[in-house]
Amino acid sequence: METLKSYVQEHKNRFINELIELLKIPSVSADTAYHQHIITTANAVKASLEKAGCDFVEICETPGNPIVYGEKTIDPTLPTVLVYGHYDVQPADPIELWTSPPFEPVIKKTEIHPEGAIFARGSCDDKGQMYMHVKALEYMIQSNTLPCNVKFMIEGEEEIGSNSLAWFVERNQEKLKNDVILISDTGMISNQQPSITTGLRGLSYVEVEVTGPNRDLHSGLYGGAVANPINVLSKMIASLHDENNHVTIPGFYDKVEELSVEERAEMAKAPFNLENYKKSLDLNDIYGEKGYVTNERNSIRPTLDVNGIWGGYTGEGAKTVIASQAFAKISMRLVPNQDWEEITELFTQHFINIAPAGVKVKVKPHHGGQGYVTPTDSIGYKAANKAYTETFGVPAIPVRSGGSIPIVALFEKELKSKTILMGFGLDSDAIHSPNEHFGIFNYLKGIETIPLFYKYFVEMSK
Amino acid sequence: METLKSYVQEHKNRFINELIELLKIPSVSADTAYHQHIITTANAVKASLEKAGCDFVEICETPGNPIVYGEKTIDPTLPTVLVYGHYDVQPADPIELWTSPPFEPVIKKTEIHPEGAIFARGSCDDKGQMYMHVKALEYMIQSNTLPCNVKFMIEGEEEIGSNSLAWFVERNQEKLKNDVILISDTGMISNQQPSITTGLRGLSYVEVEVTGPNRDLHSGLYGGAVANPINVLSKMIASLHDENNHVTIPGFYDKVEELSVEERAEMAKAPFNLENYKKSLDLNDIYGEKGYVTNERNSIRPTLDVNGIWGGYTGEGAKTVIASQAFAKISMRLVPNQDWEEITELFTQHFINIAPAGVKVKVKPHHGGQGYVTPTDSIGYKAANKAYTETFGVPAIPVRSGGSIPIVALFEKELKSKTILMGFGLDSDAIHSPNEHFGIFNYLKGIETIPLFYKYFVEMSK
Repeated sequence: METLKSYVQEHKNRFINELIELLKIPSVSADTAYHQHIITTANAVKASLEKAGCDFVEICETPGNPIVYGEKTIDPTLPTVLVYGHYDVQPADPIELWTSPPFEPVIKKTEIHPEGAIFARGSCDDKGQMYMHVKALEYMIQSNTLPCNVKFMIEGEEEIGSNSLAWFVERNQEKLKNDVILISDTGMISNQQPSITTGLRGLSYVEVEVTGPNRDLHSGLYGGAVANPINVLSKMIASLHDENNHVTIPGFYDKVEELSVEERAEMAKAPFNLENYKKSLDLNDIYGEKGYVTNERNSIRPTLDVNGIWGGYTGEGAKTVIASQAFAKISMRLVPNQDWEEITELFTQHFINIAPAGVKVKVKPHHGGQGYVTPTDSIGYKAANKAYTETFGVPAIPVRSGGSIPIVALFEKELKSKTILMGFGLDSDAIHSPNEHFGIFNYLKGIETIPLFYKYFVEMSK
Repeated sequence: METLKSYVQEHKNRFINELIELLKIPSVSADTAYHQHIITTANAVKASLEKAGCDFVEICETPGNPIVYGEKTIDPTLPTVLVYGHYDVQPADPIELWTSPPFEPVIKKTEIHPEGAIFARGSCDDKGQMYMHVKALEYMIQSNTLPCNVKFMIEGEEEIGSNSLAWFVERNQEKLKNDVILISDTGMISNQQPSITTGLRGLSYVEVEVTGPNRDLHSGLYGGAVANPINVLSKMIASLHDENNHVTIPGFYDKVEELSVEERAEMAKAPFNLENYKKSLDLNDIYGEKGYVTNERNSIRPTLDVNGIWGGYTGEGAKTVIASQAFAKISMRLVPNQDWEEITELFTQHFINIAPAGVKVKVKPHHGGQGYVTPTDSIGYKAANKAYTETFGVPAIPVRSGGSIPIVALFEKELKSKTILMGFGLDSDAIHSPNEHFGIFNYLKGIETIPLFYKYFVEMSK
């Protein structure tokens, strides 16, 4: 343990600089214009795994972005840990809100990160958290303490639905065979209170298009006489929630699991301060589904949010036009038992049904994934908890997250093994937002904690 | 009359080429990036007035875009006609929907314009219609038939609210003194059936901003727990109309004049084919305020339309984000007696009132103008009707238009004279839309008809 701590201290500057180099490559998967950077990043990840000590690393071509696969086998009779992460990142826009360029990483101190945090797109989600595992392997190889076999699968489409990963996993079940899957792509409660994510929400993401007249029209000559696609789209979106902020799509809640009073009471124990929450977001009030509190609304309840909307004249000044078309990107976060393909179909049918005469409506499914819940009595969970307890001095709290990692459900289905979500980020790290950052403390703590997971997992597996 | 016809025939190619040169200058007033082209266009208009025979022309500086003023005085005791027009144009976007570049005019034949039409932004609204008056003056000077004095006032801010024109008119009442104001910035029913616009709608144009959290958020971690500005904006916009498509803003209809059954019966006489109307716009149905037909909805009734909306991620692919802000440009067409500043205030108050907790709302008034109705028994109206009757072979029909020319009400207030709206465009000319065009037939017919207005107006004024 001491050697681990001292190794991290001794090499921390190099660990930070290596991550900074990786963060400089704008591997945005949502925009094909960045494709070359995707390839460059995959190659950089491959090189880092070879350097860390994998004895076999390859870049696997897929129908989409390549997947980096690596492995280190010390004894086939020992357990195997499969590490999953992703090297692609969210788009950086709105770029003008970044206080420093998203792909020119800088270290700045913040109230929550007095030791400094690395500001860059992908610093936390997920390049930084993925790279902790590479450095943890480096340590275990260098110190001769790797207690089992390890495999790495680092993909480049997590932010756009992991379609190629599903394709890859289905075709490589033998190659990916493992005893536990380890992922750091979630957060923890605070730097003083670690937590392990035991639940994830599913996702259904669609794009809708409302078409009225066959061309943009003069709002004076036609205003009031034809359906305005923007007004109609607004009306349709508004109708997707009722006055209690329940989603109105027929059948949407049919398979939603209702938690017991006991389970909700257990959840309520997680430290949460509503005033600080509102203050951190400059909100005069919260908002959400009636009958549930904030920590339930963003974890155990399904939601529907518009992620983008556009139509008509959006330039400087005024244009008196009725647009021919209006568009929106809409996503639904789903909870365990809701099937994302079924929900996508329910949404599509409903959205087409509520379209008024005078417009045509198209719904284009983007991607989706299932929700997931993991038990807290598995060896993997216990090993992770023991590792956190040792490095943070307090046990981890099990938490249901509102985020989605669609492939976790896929792994259980295809690879028949459980996933342990060891997250080291914080909600305040602004992932998917301008000024995303990852604390130096969190980065190094992760590198320290991961080898302990290997140690205890192998011990408990005996 | 014959000499007029033959003069137009003889010089028509030059008339067309001169207009095409003017249309090549992208004088978009809504976007300051085009300011230099605004200046270039003003200078071109000035030169054309001097060439046509004005004995005094000047470019008048204003707080905004310059106004071109010109005059030809033959005898101070004779009546004076003031011609108004505008040299600025609407933005061309969506640029990708133009079949030829908006500022590279080309002549193409269409079903309605077998003799060809000039396709270019501003060809009809209003460079083409304004330029008819310049060429009509040229004819009257050349043929020595100008029967009275004439003044020209051509502005560069009509498409953004004519703010500087109001400023200019208030300060130059003596200079602009006239007996009748002549404007060609409206349309007529068809090339076989001329019409004179006797009513215009007023306008109130605002931009709204809804702000939720202080930064873009991850829709998984925050989805369902905070107000989503796009969902909220959609809800607020949807609530601005009730189930009968009446506008719900308190007081909105208080001053609206209700037309008598007789007046509505008179309006219903104007030729209109609903099937052709729907077909021309590819609409499976029309849409609008309950209790009124299409030709009433777009003329005698006030309306509210969203002209543009934007917020969140609108790029390629998917981004699971909750935007910090959402925006919309909203305009209301008003009818006589509705005061645009009062309506703007009513909208602003209402929109702020309906904002739910969890968001902040801002309303920024853009511009506006009053509606207008002109009598059909004035000398000006009669002279115009006689001129149309002579060139088209049938009398013109009085029509209430849905469009707005805010300055018409201003002229009556400041200059105490009536405006005659002699329009030669067609609704199908796609003004404010991609592929705006103006028929060669209409352009030349206008040049033929205008001198007859002067003739009869002076005769009847004796």
